[in-house]
Amino acid sequence: MSFTDLSIATNATMLPIQEIATKAGIPQKALELYGNYKAKIDVNSLPPITTQGQIVLVTAISPTPAGEGKSTVTVGLADAFNQLNESVIVALREPSLGPVMGMKGGATGGGFAQVLPMEDINLHFTGDIHAITSANNALSALIDNHLHQGNLLNLDPRRVAWKRVLDINDRALRQVTIGLGGPLQGVPRQDGFDITVASEIMAVLCLATSLEDLKERLAQMVIAYTYDKEPVTVRQLGVEGALTLLLKDAFKPNLVQTIEGTPAIIHGGPFANIAHGCNSLMATNTARRLADIVVTEAGFGADLGAEKFMHIKSRKGNFHPDAVVIVATVRALKMHGGVEKNQLTQPNTDAVKRGMANLAKHVDTIRQFGIEPVVALNRFTADAQDELQEVMDWAKAQGVQIALTNVWEQGGKGGLELAKLVKEELAKPKNFTMLYEETDSVEEKLRIIVQQVYGGADIQLTDSAKKKLVDLKKYGWDALPICMAKTQYSLSDQPSLHGRPEGFTITIRDIIPKLGAGFLVCLTGDIMTMPGLPKQPAALNMDVDQDGNAVGLF
Amino acid sequence: MSFTDLSIATNATMLPIQEIATKAGIPQKALELYGNYKAKIDVNSLPPITTQGQIVLVTAISPTPAGEGKSTVTVGLADAFNQLNESVIVALREPSLGPVMGMKGGATGGGFAQVLPMEDINLHFTGDIHAITSANNALSALIDNHLHQGNLLNLDPRRVAWKRVLDINDRALRQVTIGLGGPLQGVPRQDGFDITVASEIMAVLCLATSLEDLKERLAQMVIAYTYDKEPVTVRQLGVEGALTLLLKDAFKPNLVQTIEGTPAIIHGGPFANIAHGCNSLMATNTARRLADIVVTEAGFGADLGAEKFMHIKSRKGNFHPDAVVIVATVRALKMHGGVEKNQLTQPNTDAVKRGMANLAKHVDTIRQFGIEPVVALNRFTADAQDELQEVMDWAKAQGVQIALTNVWEQGGKGGLELAKLVKEELAKPKNFTMLYEETDSVEEKLRIIVQQVYGGADIQLTDSAKKKLVDLKKYGWDALPICMAKTQYSLSDQPSLHGRPEGFTITIRDIIPKLGAGFLVCLTGDIMTMPGLPKQPAALNMDVDQDGNAVGLF
Repeated sequence: MSFTDLSIATNATMLPIQEIATKAGIPQKALELYGNYKAKIDVNSLPPITTQGQIVLVTAISPTPAGEGKSTVTVGLADAFNQLNESVIVALREPSLGPVMGMKGGATGGGFAQVLPMEDINLHFTGDIHAITSANNALSALIDNHLHQGNLLNLDPRRVAWKRVLDINDRALRQVTIGLGGPLQGVPRQDGFDITVASEIMAVLCLATSLEDLKERLAQMVIAYTYDKEPVTVRQLGVEGALTLLLKDAFKPNLVQTIEGTPAIIHGGPFANIAHGCNSLMATNTARRLADIVVTEAGFGADLGAEKFMHIKSRKGNFHPDAVVIVATVRALKMHGGVEKNQLTQPNTDAVKRGMANLAKHVDTIRQFGIEPVVALNRFTADAQDELQEVMDWAKAQGVQIALTNVWEQGGKGGLELAKLVKEELAKPKNFTMLYEETDSVEEKLRIIVQQVYGGADIQLTDSAKKKLVDLKKYGWDALPICMAKTQYSLSDQPSLHGRPEGFTITIRDIIPKLGAGFLVCLTGDIMTMPGLPKQPAALNMDVDQDGNAVGLF
Repeated sequence: MSFTDLSIATNATMLPIQEIATKAGIPQKALELYGNYKAKIDVNSLPPITTQGQIVLVTAISPTPAGEGKSTVTVGLADAFNQLNESVIVALREPSLGPVMGMKGGATGGGFAQVLPMEDINLHFTGDIHAITSANNALSALIDNHLHQGNLLNLDPRRVAWKRVLDINDRALRQVTIGLGGPLQGVPRQDGFDITVASEIMAVLCLATSLEDLKERLAQMVIAYTYDKEPVTVRQLGVEGALTLLLKDAFKPNLVQTIEGTPAIIHGGPFANIAHGCNSLMATNTARRLADIVVTEAGFGADLGAEKFMHIKSRKGNFHPDAVVIVATVRALKMHGGVEKNQLTQPNTDAVKRGMANLAKHVDTIRQFGIEPVVALNRFTADAQDELQEVMDWAKAQGVQIALTNVWEQGGKGGLELAKLVKEELAKPKNFTMLYEETDSVEEKLRIIVQQVYGGADIQLTDSAKKKLVDLKKYGWDALPICMAKTQYSLSDQPSLHGRPEGFTITIRDIIPKLGAGFLVCLTGDIMTMPGLPKQPAALNMDVDQDGNAVGLF
């Protein structure tokens, strides 16, 4: 196959976005066009809510460098439903521009299962992430200005909890000192930059249900602590209105299309470790009022993305998935079975068998929520028949529903079998159940996630995490869902432990209240909130041709 | 008058941008819509160039805190031409979002002489400035990554010439240290943030004539010096293609409308001190191929904005203004005559008379370029008849053409008299002449600007500026136009010297080559490239109403 994602995308014929809107039941007056193929949706101009579509959540085994193609399967599954004449919309996260300059590879699906215009979506899109950067850093400037102009709120400059952000991979900004240069240049203090998608504002935007709710959540964000260690919020600074103003357009979901013309709503993209890793509630809710079936995804593997989709997003959205797809590939299972990346083209049925333990755990996890998952075994060209058969046999033996997918090469046609299995699952009654209640103690919530979702033995809190827990209880912040910041590469907190590790203890080294988002981030291991660029950044290959088209983007 | 700019703007009825395009002769296929009232123009889809409209440059006396209303007069003059059924387009700079959070007051005109949708234009508009922020900081990240990954180019981390930017007023970022935290977090060094509109990329975007030219200019930008003090450019880093890719949409001019439905092209907004302070060449050139008359403005007073429009922009654009309007107000002339801001409502004819010296100098300056200026005396409600008459009498005595304008209150109708005078001036043959040639020595160019434009006695270079000059000659960079970074409040380099100071010497303390922009920035006095927020930032008053409309923006 000599196609690249960019060449396939460039050669695809897009429909005018107005036609996609019509197909999705969106009246033209609700469209705010961004060129011919992108539009923001003014939800206030949509017809009244008469239906609530069913949700198909696409998740995956623990990710490996081999690639699983979760977004590709998500798009391909929606295209398959579209081919079956189902009323369907796919809801996806917005990619961050930051990593684009670093690593080759987009976040808009691949091959013939992509969303378009992929080049725009992977670059500035409709400016949502830029607006979040603006709002985040306006808040930072207002905090530092407050320190500089008399500090009426008695903020301790050593305890400013609000960091600056940029949508770029820039390791040199992880730890900085600011306010240098004397009394006219602000108050010196330590600070750091995260990547924009790690901003609490991104999580807030993705969990808010209305502009009013957005403002209220922004007001609740903790920005610093006083010299007396009392928390200070955006409300006390009085700038939640200004932040909402900066975000009012970014809050509107974006309509685009797949390569097969299926309507796609792409909106919001929070990190899946220090945040909850799903597209916005606005996007999901908008898709549900328009279509019978909403295909959506969650970040990383089911231990992180799906768990948070259930416990955080579903709780706030007052819904639950009606079907769950777990994406796996033979390549990735082999890596979980101990094979190195450069050995993946060698058939190795034993390694597949060993690696299947990881898939098995994620299947068990989804079943605990009361949902019977469907496994999508996503084909790659080099997969051997024996290896594929190994997985199919395992699934049959375990009573797990499984379908081969080949959406990269075939688009929706390569996802028809999966769509049929998912459709059957959608028709069945559900008994969805959360694994914990918000009112459980923080330790109890953590233990449930570690034992039931990760398959670990227990939790352990560092002294500093224990101290934080005391504070949380003091401020009455403990009755919030947990947002685990854990490596995505392992069910444990050790990235190198592939497959299905057992008997491990997860160490919680810090707990960070995100009151705007409405969850407690629990940090385990080293979680990177500002990536770096590689030695040969992808930027070196990028260009624009004479007609203004992207070259070397992916 | 109980109207605010925002209430007037909100109550105005806008035409669909497609209608404005039709009026401007822009085919629908050249439009990329951003909502219903904004569009980017794909200049490659415009009809062939058959006409080159005349340019009316609007400049002003040295600005004062009293306000002159230059943008308001620019818009009002275009509306007046529109009322006279002339084929006219107004070309303006894009406002920076940064100051919006700080000071009440927009940059889109005022009253009934505004461009719309003012709320969008003053916030994120079509994302151009965000794209520049992205490109600027991507370059920074790529430079620091280069330092971190082996530093093949031998960059001296103490001599990185490329600063980061944010479109926000944030004094605490003026001087920072980055790369702290050990060997995995980059190379520690001093850095600083400018406001985005001060980025060389903004100047480059505004002076480039094609996407190809844009890329070439980006490639020429100096980013650092080696340990051997040799300059290193973007080309050596190999990322001009990636930067162009990030800027390809931002490079397209934006179409909007005035409150009276006159087509407006708003694109690019470089600082008027460390850069040249005019909207993009793309905007001006696009307007010229579409309309007979292009009304445009330059930043600050004629000593800065107009001088640079002539020597930098006109040179690159291979054109010259066909008429120049100098905006003055009685209020501002009074301040130049020594009156404090809180005394401005008191009639004071003597102060007006004294302050007129400032206007007289700017009139002389424009005449030196071979153009007979027209003075717009822009009325404010509190102006006394005697004061206005003082200015009119002076003009008559000096043979200076002058018209009263009242565009804030009356829109185009309040600019009809001005339009008629300007129209007469447009009909006359011109003998435009640059005051210096690029090939003059740097000292000679500086002396010409100081003596002929500022009315000063001489120049003086600090030792460090002299050293820089030696380097410039060594690298062959001296045959470029000068971009003076001088206070806008005085013809001299002392902000407090109002009116028409004489006999002063201008001290050049540094010379910074901007090879991408194609000029030499000569620094005089303290030039702020990152503003700060005031004690009571405008952000405190901002909000969004239930319908998602801005509240308290202006």
